[in-house]
Order: sequence, then structure tokens, then C-alpha cells
Amino acid sequence: MKTLNFIEEGQYKDKGMGKLLIHDSPYFKMLNFNFEAGQELPVHAHDIEGQLAITVAEGGGEFLGADGATIPAKQGDVLTSDIAEPHGFRASERTRLLVFIAPPI
Amino acid sequence: MKTLNFIEEGQYKDKGMGKLLIHDSPYFKMLNFNFEAGQELPVHAHDIEGQLAITVAEGGGEFLGADGATIPAKQGDVLTSDIAEPHGFRASERTRLLVFIAPPI
Repeated sequence: MKTLNFIEEGQYKDKGMGKLLIHDSPYFKMLNFNFEAGQELPVHAHDIEGQLAITVAEGGGEFLGADGATIPAKQGDVLTSDIAEPHGFRASERTRLLVFIAPPI
Repeated sequence: MKTLNFIEEGQYKDKGMGKLLIHDSPYFKMLNFNFEAGQELPVHAHDIEGQLAITVAEGGGEFLGADGATIPAKQGDVLTSDIAEPHGFRASERTRLLVFIAPPI
């Protein structure tokens, strides 16, 4: 058992999103990504088995998908997707995301 | 790809915590538990492989462990644990938890 506070430990960066590894094990990986307004996690995909969940803990913007698709994202929204499906995020304000990946990449 | 807003869909209940299934697949299960002040998820454990993460999205209280152990829990805290380790939660105020379990129970 261990605890970590992602709000206290997760940093924002001027250039690109801040990244905090919360947990990494053979079972899953959990990360916290922090964005200033305008920053983004570009659309990408990994050709492997598994799924992910992206939760908007604070802030908002849009989830990004294949072929320029966007889905509005606000606090409380959880996106679930295969890891092999294109996914990304663009922040329209200061945003904290929680990302779960299982099995871990 | 699908989205769900756990803040909009997660309910509080007078008797016992409110439970919302966010995602269930062969890879992981994700749930939202909502507590009124004083409600709790009693200490329990499952004798199976795997790990879980409990995130305090809003509110606070204490994480519960084996032999009456308690760990203070506030917004942003993430507890990670083996599923086989005793774990639970007691809310001291209105609280929204996000629970991630991999592989799913």
C-alpha cells in the first residue's frame, strides 16, 4: 500500500505538459498529465493489446481522435479507448488529467 | 472510444455509498463510489492477483487497512495496493472516489 497526492506533486511546465508517474506495475500504469491552456498531447496510438482511461480531474478542452475528430472534455469526463485507437488531448484551460493504462505500456 | 461524466452520473445515496460502473473489460474495471459524510466502504480483500488504485476526486476521509490501520485521505490522494491487501475507505465529508482495478474482479 502506498499513497501519493497528484495535485501536490503534479507540475505544470511552460514547454509541454507536466508528467507524473503515479504507479507502474505488471498490472497497470497510472500517470498524471498537467497542461497549461493551449498545450496538447498529440494524437497517437500504440499497436498493442489493452485499453486506457483518460479522466479530466480539473480543467477542460477536447479529446482528440482519428482524422481530426474532437470530443469536448470537461471536469469529470472519462474517455475509455483501446490503446490501438488514436487518442490525444488539447487543453483550453489549466488541466489535470489522470491516465490509466492496462496492461502497462 | 466512449465518454462518460462521473460527476454528472455518479449519485449519492442516503443508505450506503452510490456506485457507478464507468468501464468493465477484460483489461480493467473502473468505478466511481460516492459517499455522504460518515459512510464507508468496509475493509475487505480478494484473494486474487492484481492491483487497484483509489483516487480521491473530491472530499476526504481516511483509507482503511489491515488491523484497524488508517491513512488520512484528501482530494488528490491516490492509494495503490494489491487487491489481496485489506483496503477500505471512510468519508468525513461528501466524497467522490475513482477506483481502478486491473485485471478486473
